[in-house]
Amino acid sequence: MINYNPKEWFTFIFRVHKSDTVRQLMPMIVSLSIYVALVAFLEIEVFNLGDNSHLKNITILHGMLGFVISLLLVFRTNTAYERWWEGRKLWGSLTNTSRNLAMKINAVLPKDDVVNRTFFREHIVEYAFALKRHLRGHQRDSEVFQSNVIIDHELHKPNHIAALMYTRLNDLYNQKIISGTQLLFLNEEFRAFTDICGACERIKNTPIPFSYSVFIKKFIFFYVMSLPFGYVFSLGYIAVPIVVFVFYVLASLEIIAEEIENPFGVDDNDLPLTMMSKNIQKHVAEIL
Amino acid sequence: MINYNPKEWFTFIFRVHKSDTVRQLMPMIVSLSIYVALVAFLEIEVFNLGDNSHLKNITILHGMLGFVISLLLVFRTNTAYERWWEGRKLWGSLTNTSRNLAMKINAVLPKDDVVNRTFFREHIVEYAFALKRHLRGHQRDSEVFQSNVIIDHELHKPNHIAALMYTRLNDLYNQKIISGTQLLFLNEEFRAFTDICGACERIKNTPIPFSYSVFIKKFIFFYVMSLPFGYVFSLGYIAVPIVVFVFYVLASLEIIAEEIENPFGVDDNDLPLTMMSKNIQKHVAEIL
Amino acid sequence: MINYNPKEWFTFIFRVHKSDTVRQLMPMIVSLSIYVALVAFLEIEVFNLGDNSHLKNITILHGMLGFVISLLLVFRTNTAYERWWEGRKLWGSLTNTSRNLAMKINAVLPKDDVVNRTFFREHIVEYAFALKRHLRGHQRDSEVFQSNVIIDHELHKPNHIAALMYTRLNDLYNQKIISGTQLLFLNEEFRAFTDICGACERIKNTPIPFSYSVFIKKFIFFYVMSLPFGYVFSLGYIAVPIVVFVFYVLASLEIIAEEIENPFGVDDNDLPLTMMSKNIQKHVAEIL
Amino acid sequence: MINYNPKEWFTFIFRVHKSDTVRQLMPMIVSLSIYVALVAFLEIEVFNLGDNSHLKNITILHGMLGFVISLLLVFRTNTAYERWWEGRKLWGSLTNTSRNLAMKINAVLPKDDVVNRTFFREHIVEYAFALKRHLRGHQRDSEVFQSNVIIDHELHKPNHIAALMYTRLNDLYNQKIISGTQLLFLNEEFRAFTDICGACERIKNTPIPFSYSVFIKKFIFFYVMSLPFGYVFSLGYIAVPIVVFVFYVLASLEIIAEEIENPFGVDDNDLPLTMMSKNIQKHVAEIL
Amino acid sequence: MINYNPKEWFTFIFRVHKSDTVRQLMPMIVSLSIYVALVAFLEIEVFNLGDNSHLKNITILHGMLGFVISLLLVFRTNTAYERWWEGRKLWGSLTNTSRNLAMKINAVLPKDDVVNRTFFREHIVEYAFALKRHLRGHQRDSEVFQSNVIIDHELHKPNHIAALMYTRLNDLYNQKIISGTQLLFLNEEFRAFTDICGACERIKNTPIPFSYSVFIKKFIFFYVMSLPFGYVFSLGYIAVPIVVFVFYVLASLEIIAEEIENPFGVDDNDLPLTMMSKNIQKHVAEIL
Repeated sequence: MINYNPKEWFTFIFRVHKSDTVRQLMPMIVSLSIYVALVAFLEIEVFNLGDNSHLKNITILHGMLGFVISLLLVFRTNTAYERWWEGRKLWGSLTNTSRNLAMKINAVLPKDDVVNRTFFREHIVEYAFALKRHLRGHQRDSEVFQSNVIIDHELHKPNHIAALMYTRLNDLYNQKIISGTQLLFLNEEFRAFTDICGACERIKNTPIPFSYSVFIKKFIFFYVMSLPFGYVFSLGYIAVPIVVFVFYVLASLEIIAEEIENPFGVDDNDLPLTMMSKNIQKHVAEIL
Repeated sequence: MINYNPKEWFTFIFRVHKSDTVRQLMPMIVSLSIYVALVAFLEIEVFNLGDNSHLKNITILHGMLGFVISLLLVFRTNTAYERWWEGRKLWGSLTNTSRNLAMKINAVLPKDDVVNRTFFREHIVEYAFALKRHLRGHQRDSEVFQSNVIIDHELHKPNHIAALMYTRLNDLYNQKIISGTQLLFLNEEFRAFTDICGACERIKNTPIPFSYSVFIKKFIFFYVMSLPFGYVFSLGYIAVPIVVFVFYVLASLEIIAEEIENPFGVDDNDLPLTMMSKNIQKHVAEIL
Repeated sequence: MINYNPKEWFTFIFRVHKSDTVRQLMPMIVSLSIYVALVAFLEIEVFNLGDNSHLKNITILHGMLGFVISLLLVFRTNTAYERWWEGRKLWGSLTNTSRNLAMKINAVLPKDDVVNRTFFREHIVEYAFALKRHLRGHQRDSEVFQSNVIIDHELHKPNHIAALMYTRLNDLYNQKIISGTQLLFLNEEFRAFTDICGACERIKNTPIPFSYSVFIKKFIFFYVMSLPFGYVFSLGYIAVPIVVFVFYVLASLEIIAEEIENPFGVDDNDLPLTMMSKNIQKHVAEIL
Repeated sequence: MINYNPKEWFTFIFRVHKSDTVRQLMPMIVSLSIYVALVAFLEIEVFNLGDNSHLKNITILHGMLGFVISLLLVFRTNTAYERWWEGRKLWGSLTNTSRNLAMKINAVLPKDDVVNRTFFREHIVEYAFALKRHLRGHQRDSEVFQSNVIIDHELHKPNHIAALMYTRLNDLYNQKIISGTQLLFLNEEFRAFTDICGACERIKNTPIPFSYSVFIKKFIFFYVMSLPFGYVFSLGYIAVPIVVFVFYVLASLEIIAEEIENPFGVDDNDLPLTMMSKNIQKHVAEIL
Repeated sequence: MINYNPKEWFTFIFRVHKSDTVRQLMPMIVSLSIYVALVAFLEIEVFNLGDNSHLKNITILHGMLGFVISLLLVFRTNTAYERWWEGRKLWGSLTNTSRNLAMKINAVLPKDDVVNRTFFREHIVEYAFALKRHLRGHQRDSEVFQSNVIIDHELHKPNHIAALMYTRLNDLYNQKIISGTQLLFLNEEFRAFTDICGACERIKNTPIPFSYSVFIKKFIFFYVMSLPFGYVFSLGYIAVPIVVFVFYVLASLEIIAEEIENPFGVDDNDLPLTMMSKNIQKHVAEIL
């Protein structure tokens, strides 16, 4: 994620940032310009179509469908934003849950039980890092700031870490270090961990329905490709920048939606999972 | 459900996938083309209507109602999407609940109580498969990977499985294997099972209100059928592809909404219930 | 509620169903047709207004306000749909709560306590039927499948049934048949009953604010009544079906919203409360 | 709040009800009519502007911004409606909470403890009335049907009543009339009271952001005031009713939003707090 | 936050308030006016472009994209408003939680334990002030009305205060002043504190995705800058106020959204955190 000051309009408008959609769309913008110029050349110079040509009125189509495509794309972006925001909320919950679990463990364990305190401190932190790698498909990475927890790469790591902690808790219960009520109260935090992990996986693994995604892309394509036929009559060669700008707007909305609908990747707009995991590490270290 | 990479625009635009709405609408697209061509032929060649005909201005209607139909269809698709997403969330909860129940059972049962452990492992998993078959109306199917649980086909299977598990728990309580508090805590998970099942049934059995659905279809039909009368004046035979494209856009939105508003079927866009059930089986087997 | 297959377009478009808005609007459609024809006759034949008349340009108004009216009505329908869907969710909760209460009662009562078991089986079921009659204003009806519970018609029946059950529970507690913890746990289900009843009453008794409702109806009326003045210039007598179609679309949206915003009536689009109550009866009978 | 039958279109359209926006806007409608007539008179008779005047094309502006203003106002109304509906839900919760607290008190107190029963019956009911007066700024009013509870007018009355009840409960606990668990369970209801009171205060004290409100009003004003300049060219003196109708629609939406965004006042569209408080009184009297 | 009466239209329309967007946009409005006048001068006087120029038809673009930009900005404002409202709800929860915690502490502590009562009274109040300063980045400020709590400026102050209170509670538990159940019940309030703090930080630290923000600003800029090229043909020098007004509307929406999407600052539209903290102080002092 990029931190920025939303009030600096000047830099926003004139700098072309790396994750700017202008940059991503550049190849298509160039191809489209050539295509529109070609259509203009053919209609004006080669076929020399006059104002009586029916082709001129094809713009009726674009006026009529302009609403639908606008609505569709703005709704699409909004839905994607809600997923992004839900992802952010989930990681916010993870931070709070990690902290609460650390505080509870701190309260129920004897002050001098260094072994178990270290165990939980390491595993609570490792859960966040493991979830981050799990969501990004980087299961095999290792990180300098991570704990000594080593897990088989084939397993579902976050679940496995949760299970390790749960087993340890059960042992503490069997050794009468913690009571049954305390076991059940702590259980709630583990349920929260699992629920957060499940919800993140849901967002990651469930893109919007296939037909819907195909339909939007086909619609943008045919809409933009048919634009120059009518526009050339009233705009001449000025149709080139105009069609390109319309395409830039429509395609940007779709591209932004694609980027933010899965907020757990490493795109510029994705959530700063590494930073959040480090925050959890810091908070937990202060408590346990 | 189809897994796909939303960023591959090229294949989306040019491949006609099985579940693509283009394919489903093909018969209607062909009929409509013939109809529009016929209208054009009659107006241009037979009646030879000039620019003074009032019929020319019928397009006022389409401009005015273009807003309403666009808004209606985009809202319709959005509502359907929310149902689809709610269905996805419910199955995510089912996964988490199954896992949590398994973890709790694992904690409260003695390590060597193989009989009861097997009982719960099989029935928790079977619940997911039974719900899947229940929602798809395939009550009589059997699946190779299922447990040995055999239930009368006339009964509401998911409820029956929940009741079997509840009775067993009660027996454990009467035999003093688990305490009253534990019974009540476990009860929460059964309530979650029943709530998920009830919510899935609600989505499955409650389509959008009948009048609303009828109205949208009638509206699309009359809107599209009246389009060529005015368009032929300004577009001639080009009206054929134009009207077809407008129809493709409007009808696609309605068709996508119809498909995703009940997310538990076996359409391409429906949720991968079998895969999710198998995941539950795998997760539970790791715990119990 | 009408069960239907949303994918059968043909029957939707050509059959005029009883609850179809076309049918309800028929008297107004006929009157409006006469009105528009009269306006057309006066403008064309009597006053013989030419293209210079300022009246011709009155259509500017309709273009400008067409967007507001469309947005208003689509939002209105959406809000009404959300109330309908909330009503559906509440009755889904009632089903789940009834079933959970039956399961809990089954667990806490001794197996051979036939009297109390019968008491709760009858009253849980009766609650659903009483709520149905309460919401429909049919307090005095009796139904063949109901229990033997007889209550004074002047009382708020659902509340009274809940109170009867609560008193009985208290007696069981005083007789030491159930413990204090069990009493409090069961209390939760009664709270759920009361909350569901309160929420249903809220939906039933709170239509959208009066001014808003008045405004929408006035707006539709003046909008449609002023349509023909401008349309007749460009459409001649074709204005009759055009204005009627615009009216059909706008009024249908308002009528559908009116029907579904109170989902507890006996309209075709209303929720199948009787069927749901019978389902509760069946489910509870299987448990208790 | 006005109770009405939403299906009686006739009376809605032709009666001008007291809270109708037409009535509230009448002074502005009259002034606006004079203003538009003046503009028309100046442009047509005095300056005699021809069709070549650039002023004629000022309508481009209104077409372009017509979308924005429509969207803004419909969204504004929707947001206000959601606040109104949230207020309604909160008072629904207050009813349920009052009833639940009465039922719990009834269960935990001995049958013959008339003093405490009376105390709680009076104070639960008084809470609703005090909250009503608090939200309406009528702290000093007294009502015939109220209890004997007398509180200093300077205090936050609802909070004070809750505190009185809480202290009494604590006394009961110290006297061993109720147990610690029961105290904590009852505490939940008090938390609900305080949460409802806090949420009502939030709705009452937090109008939509100031800049937003200013912007909408300025926008409507300049939009409507500039309308006649262009309209007079194409509509002549007919511009007067047209501009007035556009103003009526836009201003009505804003006025309705203003009225319903604070639902606790005594406007016609506000919630019937007195009636609801009396209902609570009736329900509680039936129980305690 | 500014308190105002939303029904006083007159002052809204004619007074230019400090936080009015007109004021903030003034420099850009002046520059834009000069730019548009220059374009008009060049097109009319210098190049003397006639009606045949293709540049005239560039307005097609603005009609087509006007809908997208309107939708985008209204949705943007709405999303920002929801964040603002969520922030308001969080501080409402903080007030209720502080009050509830004070009431619980009051109930569990002996009446004469002045030391601990003072400790909690001061720290509960300090939490609100510390959160306020934390959200506004004013960590080093001190306030006359604050308690004697002194914390190292490097620490995360709200978390630190919560930890201090939690440790004290634990000590009370170890000294058998409060029971284990009471400890766990009080734990809930601390969890609420931490959750509120985390959610406020989420809103503060997560602006809408960078690409989205860039895209909206670029879109407004190019849209407005290209407006005069076409408008000058039909509007002449009147294009200056028209373009400026369009810019005012679009930019105001974006500016309002920017201001309210982070509701914890000290802008005029931001939430009155200081006032709310003082309220908490007052409420807690009345209880403890």
